[in-house]
Amino acid sequence: MLGVCYYPEHWPESWWEKDARRMRALGISYVRIGEFAWSRLEPARGMFDFSWLDRAMDTLTKAGLKIVLGTPTATPPKWLMDEYPEIAPVDEQGKVRGFGSRRHYTFSSDVWWKESERIVEAVAKRYGEHPGLAGWQTDNEYGCHDTSLSWGVEDLKAFRRWLRLRYQSTQQLNEAWGSVFWSMEVQSFDDVVLPNLTVTEPNPAVRLDFWRFHSDQIAAYDRMQCDIIRQHSPGRWITHNFMGFVNDFDHWKVGENLDLASWDSYPIGFVEKFPFSEEERVRWAETSHPDIAAFHHDLYRGVGNGRFWIMEQQPGPVNWAPWNPVPKPGMVRLWAWEGLAHGAEVVSYFRWRQAPFAQEQMHAGLNLPGLDELSPGGLEAETVGREIAAIGALPEASQAPVAIVYDYESYWSAVIQPQGKDFRYEELAFRWYEAVRKLGLDVDFVRPGASLKGYRLVLVPCLMHVSDLALAAFEQADGVVLFGPRTGSRDRNFKIPTNLPPGPVRDLAGIRITQVASLRPGLGISLSGAIDGQATRWREYIETAADAKVETTFEDGLPALVSKGRYRYLACWIEGAALQDLMQYLANGLDLQTVALPDFIRYRSAGELTFAFNYGPDAWSIPETQEFVMGGQQVPPFSLSAWRKASV
Amino acid sequence: MLGVCYYPEHWPESWWEKDARRMRALGISYVRIGEFAWSRLEPARGMFDFSWLDRAMDTLTKAGLKIVLGTPTATPPKWLMDEYPEIAPVDEQGKVRGFGSRRHYTFSSDVWWKESERIVEAVAKRYGEHPGLAGWQTDNEYGCHDTSLSWGVEDLKAFRRWLRLRYQSTQQLNEAWGSVFWSMEVQSFDDVVLPNLTVTEPNPAVRLDFWRFHSDQIAAYDRMQCDIIRQHSPGRWITHNFMGFVNDFDHWKVGENLDLASWDSYPIGFVEKFPFSEEERVRWAETSHPDIAAFHHDLYRGVGNGRFWIMEQQPGPVNWAPWNPVPKPGMVRLWAWEGLAHGAEVVSYFRWRQAPFAQEQMHAGLNLPGLDELSPGGLEAETVGREIAAIGALPEASQAPVAIVYDYESYWSAVIQPQGKDFRYEELAFRWYEAVRKLGLDVDFVRPGASLKGYRLVLVPCLMHVSDLALAAFEQADGVVLFGPRTGSRDRNFKIPTNLPPGPVRDLAGIRITQVASLRPGLGISLSGAIDGQATRWREYIETAADAKVETTFEDGLPALVSKGRYRYLACWIEGAALQDLMQYLANGLDLQTVALPDFIRYRSAGELTFAFNYGPDAWSIPETQEFVMGGQQVPPFSLSAWRKASV
Amino acid sequence: MLGVCYYPEHWPESWWEKDARRMRALGISYVRIGEFAWSRLEPARGMFDFSWLDRAMDTLTKAGLKIVLGTPTATPPKWLMDEYPEIAPVDEQGKVRGFGSRRHYTFSSDVWWKESERIVEAVAKRYGEHPGLAGWQTDNEYGCHDTSLSWGVEDLKAFRRWLRLRYQSTQQLNEAWGSVFWSMEVQSFDDVVLPNLTVTEPNPAVRLDFWRFHSDQIAAYDRMQCDIIRQHSPGRWITHNFMGFVNDFDHWKVGENLDLASWDSYPIGFVEKFPFSEEERVRWAETSHPDIAAFHHDLYRGVGNGRFWIMEQQPGPVNWAPWNPVPKPGMVRLWAWEGLAHGAEVVSYFRWRQAPFAQEQMHAGLNLPGLDELSPGGLEAETVGREIAAIGALPEASQAPVAIVYDYESYWSAVIQPQGKDFRYEELAFRWYEAVRKLGLDVDFVRPGASLKGYRLVLVPCLMHVSDLALAAFEQADGVVLFGPRTGSRDRNFKIPTNLPPGPVRDLAGIRITQVASLRPGLGISLSGAIDGQATRWREYIETAADAKVETTFEDGLPALVSKGRYRYLACWIEGAALQDLMQYLANGLDLQTVALPDFIRYRSAGELTFAFNYGPDAWSIPETQEFVMGGQQVPPFSLSAWRKASV
Repeated sequence: MLGVCYYPEHWPESWWEKDARRMRALGISYVRIGEFAWSRLEPARGMFDFSWLDRAMDTLTKAGLKIVLGTPTATPPKWLMDEYPEIAPVDEQGKVRGFGSRRHYTFSSDVWWKESERIVEAVAKRYGEHPGLAGWQTDNEYGCHDTSLSWGVEDLKAFRRWLRLRYQSTQQLNEAWGSVFWSMEVQSFDDVVLPNLTVTEPNPAVRLDFWRFHSDQIAAYDRMQCDIIRQHSPGRWITHNFMGFVNDFDHWKVGENLDLASWDSYPIGFVEKFPFSEEERVRWAETSHPDIAAFHHDLYRGVGNGRFWIMEQQPGPVNWAPWNPVPKPGMVRLWAWEGLAHGAEVVSYFRWRQAPFAQEQMHAGLNLPGLDELSPGGLEAETVGREIAAIGALPEASQAPVAIVYDYESYWSAVIQPQGKDFRYEELAFRWYEAVRKLGLDVDFVRPGASLKGYRLVLVPCLMHVSDLALAAFEQADGVVLFGPRTGSRDRNFKIPTNLPPGPVRDLAGIRITQVASLRPGLGISLSGAIDGQATRWREYIETAADAKVETTFEDGLPALVSKGRYRYLACWIEGAALQDLMQYLANGLDLQTVALPDFIRYRSAGELTFAFNYGPDAWSIPETQEFVMGGQQVPPFSLSAWRKASV
Repeated sequence: MLGVCYYPEHWPESWWEKDARRMRALGISYVRIGEFAWSRLEPARGMFDFSWLDRAMDTLTKAGLKIVLGTPTATPPKWLMDEYPEIAPVDEQGKVRGFGSRRHYTFSSDVWWKESERIVEAVAKRYGEHPGLAGWQTDNEYGCHDTSLSWGVEDLKAFRRWLRLRYQSTQQLNEAWGSVFWSMEVQSFDDVVLPNLTVTEPNPAVRLDFWRFHSDQIAAYDRMQCDIIRQHSPGRWITHNFMGFVNDFDHWKVGENLDLASWDSYPIGFVEKFPFSEEERVRWAETSHPDIAAFHHDLYRGVGNGRFWIMEQQPGPVNWAPWNPVPKPGMVRLWAWEGLAHGAEVVSYFRWRQAPFAQEQMHAGLNLPGLDELSPGGLEAETVGREIAAIGALPEASQAPVAIVYDYESYWSAVIQPQGKDFRYEELAFRWYEAVRKLGLDVDFVRPGASLKGYRLVLVPCLMHVSDLALAAFEQADGVVLFGPRTGSRDRNFKIPTNLPPGPVRDLAGIRITQVASLRPGLGISLSGAIDGQATRWREYIETAADAKVETTFEDGLPALVSKGRYRYLACWIEGAALQDLMQYLANGLDLQTVALPDFIRYRSAGELTFAFNYGPDAWSIPETQEFVMGGQQVPPFSLSAWRKASV
Repeated sequence: MLGVCYYPEHWPESWWEKDARRMRALGISYVRIGEFAWSRLEPARGMFDFSWLDRAMDTLTKAGLKIVLGTPTATPPKWLMDEYPEIAPVDEQGKVRGFGSRRHYTFSSDVWWKESERIVEAVAKRYGEHPGLAGWQTDNEYGCHDTSLSWGVEDLKAFRRWLRLRYQSTQQLNEAWGSVFWSMEVQSFDDVVLPNLTVTEPNPAVRLDFWRFHSDQIAAYDRMQCDIIRQHSPGRWITHNFMGFVNDFDHWKVGENLDLASWDSYPIGFVEKFPFSEEERVRWAETSHPDIAAFHHDLYRGVGNGRFWIMEQQPGPVNWAPWNPVPKPGMVRLWAWEGLAHGAEVVSYFRWRQAPFAQEQMHAGLNLPGLDELSPGGLEAETVGREIAAIGALPEASQAPVAIVYDYESYWSAVIQPQGKDFRYEELAFRWYEAVRKLGLDVDFVRPGASLKGYRLVLVPCLMHVSDLALAAFEQADGVVLFGPRTGSRDRNFKIPTNLPPGPVRDLAGIRITQVASLRPGLGISLSGAIDGQATRWREYIETAADAKVETTFEDGLPALVSKGRYRYLACWIEGAALQDLMQYLANGLDLQTVALPDFIRYRSAGELTFAFNYGPDAWSIPETQEFVMGGQQVPPFSLSAWRKASV
C-alpha cells in the first residue's frame, strides 16, 4: 500500500480537501502528519491550539485516508528552549547545539523528559481515539544529525547515575575499566568525567559505556512515549521512523517498544554517505547501489519483528547530500516495488508537495513546489498505485535461507577502537550482505542472541563481544556459522578475553588469536585454498586446534579460513571477488541454489513470487522462462519483472 | 600613473627625504600612507601624536608626491580593545577573534562606530586640507580574513534591529522565512537567534538575511567615514581598496559612497585562492592566470562608476599564499600596463621597501628588505615609469560590447544553498568572462538593475533573485541576453517563486523549470545542437513555451539551451570547450568581430589603442600587421605589444 | 644489554616473582617501573602508599634485575586535578584538555611545579638509595600528544614573566617584534596576549618567543626534577625518554640536565607520522624505513653527550598509528642490534606483557595479553638476549666522519613561517641524513655552536638563526661545511638580517640572497653542473662574491650551488637522486670512502665491527668477503651481518 507525508500547517487550509482528494486518486491510503508541529500545537506554554489539527485530521479522514500521527518532540519550540536552556545538546567539542533547526535536545535532560511527557500526553489524549487514526510515530529519526550522543553537564549527571546502577561501587568500575592504567582511578562516581576533550584518547571502555548509556536512554525515552500513547490510544499501533546507515544506538532495543518498525529510504543520498569507492559513487549516482535499500528493508523487517514500513520514500532529487541528482526515470517506481517485495506493508512518500521555503525547499515531493501538479516522481508513484491495485497485496515475508547477525555494539566498538583506520563494521556487514545477495539469496537480519534455528547459513561479520546468550544461539544453530574477524575479541568490559580472542567461541571455532595486523591501503596478502584472492585492511594470526581444518592459507602459510564442524572462522578482511568466492563456496557446501547475478540485478522472493530488479542502464534477460506477473523475460533498465516460482 | 604604499613609521625619520626623492626618480606620483598607524597617532586614549605624520606628509609633499591618506580603522590599538572588548569579532564557531593582527572589530558594535568616528574625524580635521593630500582611502580591505560576518552578542543585537526594520512584525518575518517549518516560529524579534551552531543547517532564508545585514552594515560604516571626511576635506576624492575574489559584501553598495574604486592586485597569490584545477595552478603559478587581474579591473571599473585605481600592485613574491613563487621576469611590468589598458588611473605598488619584521616580512617591495636598493620588481616598475613618461596617459575606457551582470547576493545564495557541492557562483562568472575574453572581446561589469543599453551581448551567469529593477533592465536591453542556470530561482525571501523558476524572467525566456539535478564529479551529460560537449555539475529540467526555440538538447532529448527573441537560457553548467563554443556561437549571431586567442594571450582596447598581453613562455605573433606603439608583431613571453587600431 | 618496561600495579602481586624470574631467563638486566603510578602511590592527598612498590622493587631486585624508576608526573591523579583545575593545559583553540588520559598539565602552572616537587621528592626520598635502583627517568615523553605548548591563563602569566626577563622594557620588546606593524604596540607587559585566536596570523616573532618560552619551561621543569633526585639519590644516573620526530622543545637543553639520553623507538608507527610519500609508506609499512631508528639513535647519542638508551623498543604491533601492522619476522631482532650498533647501552622493550585493558590494550608486549607466554616479538627478544651473551658488549661509538647540525629553533621557525606549504625542517634534515647514510657513512648530530672539529663533512640543512657561537664553530670547522636553504635568514628576533640572508655566514659562503621563491607541487627547476636533476619546493636568488665559485646553476643560469673555500651553499630544495648526487659529489671531493648501498641496506660501524642491516624482502650480498662475527656474506631479508673491519 502507499502512503504520504503531509504538512497541513504548511498550506492554506483551503487546500486540504483538494489535497486529500488527489491523494486518494493517486492510490494513497495512509498519510503521516504532525511530527514537527509543536509550535503550532502549543505556541506558548500551556496555550494549546488543536483546532487546526482537528480540522486537518477530519478532512483527511473524510477523504478516506488513514492517519499516522507523529509526536512533535523532534522540534521543541523557542519558548521552551528559553525556559530550559539545559535541554540543548552539546557536541563532542563542548559546544552547545542550539535552536534553529531540529533535534536540539539531549536525551539526558530530566526537564526534557517531563516536557516530552507533557506534549505526548496532550496529543495522545486529544487524538488517541480519533476514528481516522491508524497508528503513531514516536518523535522523528532518533539520532539524525549526530544527536544520539551529547556531551554536556546534563549528560554527565545522567551518565554517573547510569554507572552507579551498572557498577555499584567505584572499585568495580575501576576494575572493569582498568583505571589503574595511567592513574585514571576514581574514588567516587562524581569523579567520573566525560570521555571527551582529553589530552590523548580516553579509555575505550569508558567510551563504550558512554555509548551504551546514550543508547539505553534513547530506548527508554522511546518507551516512555510508547507507554503514554498506549494508555490513551487503544488499538493503534506504534512505530518509529529509523534511518539508513545510522548505527549510533541499538535499534533492536528501540524495536522492542514498537509494534512495527519503519524507516526513511533515500537510496540516492545514501550513496554519498556510505564509504563506497569514487567509481561506485559515480556508477550508482542516479539509481543508488542495488543493495542499499534492500539491506535496510531486511534489517528493519528484523527490527520490527517481521513488520515494517517505509515511512519516507525518496520521490525525486533531495537537498541534503553533497550532490543531489534526479533519479533515473523508473527508479521511483522500482524502489517502491522493491520495498514491497522485501515485505514493506506501506511505502509512504516524503512528501506530498515540495515546500518552496526553509531548509528542505530543494527536496522533491509528489507535487511540484507549491503546485497541484504531479512531479515526475509523483507520476511514477501514480503508476505504482495502479499496479498495486491490479496485483493486490503481496504475501508476508517468510524466513530466508541466510541470516546476518547484526550488532550495534560492535559498530561502536570498531569506531572507538578501529586499530586500522579503515576497519568499519558497517562496511564489513554491507559487503557480506552484498556478496550473498549477488547469489540471488534472500537474507534476514538477526539480533545477537536471538534464535538462529532454520537458517542454512549464518553470517557473523564481526561480533566483538559474544554474550552468553549469543553463544547459546550459535551453539544451537543448525546451519553453517561463519565468524568474521574480531569476533569474540572483547569481553563485556571491553577487555581482551583471558583466553584470548575469539573468547567464548574459541572452542566452537577451534582457534586462538595471538596477533592482529591492520594493513594500510596498498598492502595486501595473497590467499590460497578454498578461496583465492587478497586479504586487505585486517589480518589475524591464529593457532588452530587439532580438530580444526585449515581451508585457506595466507601467502606465509598461516591459516586464513578455518573450519570446525559447522563453524567457520575468517581471519581477515576480504572484499570483491574473494568475498564473492567465499560466499559461493559456503553456498556450494550447503547445496543452496544460487544464481550468479550481474552486479546491477537483484532477486527477492515474496511467497510464490520472485522479483528481479534492474539497477543498470541495460536491459537484462532472465536466464529461464518464467510465468510473469509483472514485466517479462527482458527486464528493461531501471525496471523490474516478477514471476511465480516454477515448482522445482 | 604610478603610485606606491609607504610606511614612514617603519623607518628612521632620517630616511624619509631620501625615500621620497627616490620615489620621484622612479616615476612615482602618488604615495599612500597612514592606514595602519593608529597606535602611533594615538598611543593612549586622547593622547594624539600627529607630529611625525605632519613631518612625513610635509617631506613627501615637498618632494612632489601627492598623498593618499588611509583612515587607520583596520587596526584598533590594544588600549582600545582593553577598554571595549565587545569590539572584537566572533567567528562562526563562537570564538572571539582577538587582538594581535588586524581587522579585529565587528561592524555591529556601537562603541566601535563611535570610536571610528572619533579617529576618522581627528585625522580628517588634521589633514583634510593638507596641500599634498590628493584623496582618501577608507579603512583597509573590508572583509579581508573573513571579517565581513561576525557571530557575537553585538551582532545578534544589531541583526534584531535590522530585522525589525525589514519586517516590522514577527508575523511577516515568520511568513517570509517559512518559520512554520520545523517549529522555528518566533514570537518576538528577541526570539531570533544567530544562524550558527544549530544541530543541522539553519534556515537558508535566515542566513541570507544575516549576510545582507552584514553587507548593509559595511556599506553604512563606510558611508559614515566618507561623510566625516567630506565634511573636513573639501575637494579631495575618496576611495576604498577592495580585494580580489572577495564577495562577502555588496561592493556595488560600497561603491555608491566612493568617488572612485580601487583594488589590491596580487595576481599570483590569487591563483591558489580561486578553484582552478591543479594543472592550471601549475601552469599559471609564476605569471597568474591571464584573466584574474583583468576580471577585477573590469569589475572595479564598474564598481567605481568608470573610475578605478590599483591601490596595491604585487611587485614580486608575497607571503600569504600557500606557495609564493617569484613572478616571471616581465610580469611586474606586464601587470602594470594591463591595469592601465583596462582603465586604471594609477597603479600603486605595495610596498616601497620590504619590511624585515612582523607578519609581512616575506612580502617583496620595490626595494630590498631594509635597503635603498631596487628589487627585481622595483627595476621593472622603473621601466614602466619610463614607458608611461614616453607614451603619456591612455584614453578613458569606452563601453565594451559585452556586459556581465555580477551579483553579490547570488554568490551568498549559492554558498548558503549550493545544492551541489561544486556549484560556485564566482567560478561560473569567471569562466564566462574567460570564454568571452578569449575571443578578444572587452567586457564591462554591470550591477543588476543598471542600464544594459548599448551592449551587444549581456551575460547573466546566475542571478538567483531577479528584482523588479533587474527585470526592467533586461526588458529594456537592446542586445542578446543570456541567462545562466538558477537565474530567477528564488524570490526576495529566498523562496522558490510561485510560478517556479526562472520566476520573473519566465516569460522573457519562454521556459519553466520543474526539476534540478546536481551532478557529482564523474557524471556528465552530452549536449548536441548549437553547442556540443558536456554538461557537468548542474542540470535543469525545463519545459519550453510554444514560442521558444530549443537550440541545444541534452542526450535525453530535453532542452539545454533555449532562445526566445533576444533572450537565451542555458539550463546547465558548462565549461572549457563547450563554454567557448557557446560564446563563439552567440558572437557569430551578433556579427561581433572575434579573434580566437590562444589561452595565454589577451587583448584589451583603450581608445584607439589595442594591447596584446602574453602570459605564456613562448613568443606569439599577432595575426595582422599593425602600427605598433609598444613592442611589435612578435609579442615576447611575459611581455606586451600595443598598436593603433586599423580603420576597419 | 636488554631491559623491559613493567607495571607491577597492573598484575596480581602473586605474579611478580615469576615475572622477574622469566625476565632474567630472557636475558633482561634492567626493568623500568613506576612512571604512571601516582594514583597508587598517593590515592588521596598526603595518603602515601609505598608498600606495594617497596615489595615490587624488592622482588625485582632479589631476582637480579636493576631498576629504572620513573617519576609519576605524567599522570596527575583526579583528586589533584579537582583541587587545582588550573593545572590542565589549554589547546591552541582555547579548549581545556582535561583529565582522562595522560599529560594533562601545563608546564606554566606554579601549583603544578609545587605538586611535582612534592611527589618527586617523596619518591626520591623513599627509593633514592634503594639497592636495586640503577637510575631515574624524569616524567615520561615530554611533549607527547602535543603537550609542549599550552594556551591558557597560566601560560599567559608565565609568558609575560619570561618576556619581562628577556626584554626588560616594552620599548625593547616592541622594537624586537616590530610591533609598529599593524599598530600591535604594547605599553606594558600586561598588554601582551597569546599568539593565538587572532583574526589573521599573529606576528611570527611573537610565536617564536612563545615557543622558546615553553621550551625553556620544559628544560627548567626537568631540571627541577633532576635537582631533587640528585639530592636524594647519590650515585644514580638520570635520563628522560624522548620521542621520535618530536621537535616541539629544544632537546639539547633538556639533555644538559641528564646523565644520559634515552628515547622510545617505534620504528613502524613513525612511518605514518613522517611526511613520506604513499609509495614509501607502503614499502616500509612492515619494517620501517631504514633511516628512522638510526636517525634518532644518532640524534640522541648527541643529545646524551655520547650516551643513550632505547627506553622503549617496539616488540610487535602497536595501537596508536592509523594502521598497525605486525613487523616482518626478524625486525624485532634487527632493531635491537641496530640500536646497539649505533651505541645504545640498553635496549628496553615496551612492555613485558600486553595489557588486556585500557588505552594500550592493542599494544604488543613480550608476552601475550595477560599470559605468561612469549609473543612472537618476545621470542625474537630471547634470541637477541642469547646473541648478546655470546658476543659481549660492543665498543663505544667513535666520532663519525659526517656531522649534521640539528636545530630545534629552525624547526619552530619553519613551522611558524613555512613561506611554502611543504618547506619542512624535519623532512629536509631527514632526507640529508638518508642521502649520506646511503653512502655507507656514519653520522653524528651536533648542537649549533658545538665544536665541529674532526668532521670531514658538516651538513647544515637549515640553520635559520646563526648565533655568534654557531658562527664561531663554522669558522673553526676543519671539514667542508654545506649550508642549506634559509640558513642565516633570520636574526635572533626573527627579522631579516640587515645585510640580507645568509646574514652572519654571508662572508663565509660568499653570497647574498635577494629573493626567495616557494614552488607548488608540479613546479621544478632543472639544475646543471656539479649536480643534475631538479630543484623543487624552494629556490633562492643569490648574488655571488668575486671569490665564490658557482658549482651548479639553475636552468635560468643563476647559481644554485656555490663554493667558497671549504664552505658550500645550496640555494634550493633537492631530494632523491639529485640530493644523493650532491652528497656523493661532496664525499668524492673529500676522498671519503663510500659504498653505494641499495635503499634497503644500511651500514654502521661500532669500533672494529661493521654491521649491515637488511630492511628489504630479498637477501643482499655484501660486496667484499669479510671476517663475519654475525651472519655471513649473504644478509637474509630482515636480518643483519657483522664483520671485523679489514685493515685497509
